[in-house]
Amino acid sequence: MNRKVPGPTLMRLATYLTYLAELDAKGVDTISSAQMEDRTGINAAIFRKDLSYFGEFGKPGIGYGVHELSAKIAAILKVDREQGVLLVGAGNLGSAIVAYPGLRSRNFHIAAVFDNNYNKIGRKLWDLEILDIANVKEVNKQLGARIAILAIPASAAQEVAEMLVEADVRAILNFAPVTLRLSKHIAVRNADSVQELAVLSYHLSDQDA
Amino acid sequence: MNRKVPGPTLMRLATYLTYLAELDAKGVDTISSAQMEDRTGINAAIFRKDLSYFGEFGKPGIGYGVHELSAKIAAILKVDREQGVLLVGAGNLGSAIVAYPGLRSRNFHIAAVFDNNYNKIGRKLWDLEILDIANVKEVNKQLGARIAILAIPASAAQEVAEMLVEADVRAILNFAPVTLRLSKHIAVRNADSVQELAVLSYHLSDQDA
Repeated sequence: MNRKVPGPTLMRLATYLTYLAELDAKGVDTISSAQMEDRTGINAAIFRKDLSYFGEFGKPGIGYGVHELSAKIAAILKVDREQGVLLVGAGNLGSAIVAYPGLRSRNFHIAAVFDNNYNKIGRKLWDLEILDIANVKEVNKQLGARIAILAIPASAAQEVAEMLVEADVRAILNFAPVTLRLSKHIAVRNADSVQELAVLSYHLSDQDA
Repeated sequence: MNRKVPGPTLMRLATYLTYLAELDAKGVDTISSAQMEDRTGINAAIFRKDLSYFGEFGKPGIGYGVHELSAKIAAILKVDREQGVLLVGAGNLGSAIVAYPGLRSRNFHIAAVFDNNYNKIGRKLWDLEILDIANVKEVNKQLGARIAILAIPASAAQEVAEMLVEADVRAILNFAPVTLRLSKHIAVRNADSVQELAVLSYHLSDQDA
């Protein structure tokens, strides 16, 4: 448990959890590492190696208990508990994020929405009042959220990210296509769809692209 | 060039490109691997290793030419050419994707938008007419797009993905929180924000989460 877990392992754990939760909902009891490979495309040996960071799982000839493994990975990723998330940006993307049913399935909920646009502040995004980003520190003293989502243009992202850190946010999911410059103690993941498209583009044959 | 390039290397190349493009726009001429590490958080040795898959770059004591390296990575990822992308799903997320300025910066453009909702088909999403997903094969004979974005609920994702493959799509960026089961010849990347949040959640201390 004290070994540092590589980032790709964590991302794969989240993938396993998505699939295991699907199986669990269907009432499937056990799964083999070969079935996991067949379904997720992740090599069975890598699957076993990823799990080995956290202890012993699975039984030879039987496989892995779907419900048990799902609960264990949820605990590792700390998504077995309710967590509030601050959302900054009440535009189209912000709107899609609030409405996204997948958040709830991992016990995340949007605790507050912020924007800096005075035409939006005070209005509602779904059932949440849009708050002034200038008040984020004050608001988060009450909420105590440690995770935030940045759904704003690149030009504002660095400044807002620093305000979030000041407000005791410790982890940021950044949708702005810009690299944030923050303390190493702040966990940042970039959800830049264009980077994902670029990786897909690489895989196209030269005739296709 | 014939060595298989690992997925994480490709994702990091896309990250380097985002940062190099920022520097290039600012008129910065050269960058060292140490500066790259300082800015992106990616270890300098890993940066050099990633580049080594594609040839020799950089000069000792001088560093890497920002414009030159940026152009080279764009060519590797095939984002140096214009590429049309099919978007399925004309909801909030689809709307955010069409409006996203980052697409254009990597030479992607949304070539057509599809939905299966008869209340949406025929209407406009920004300046694009929303087309019936049932016609995707016919429409893509003209467009010849090889990349698609799935911005639809999980329940419809597998069926629509299969229709896209039938329509000669070869790469799919999947926003639906579900694992797609497709031929190994189809490149799929999952842009599941909840998985990203789960990874961030892991990095919170036990006091925080």
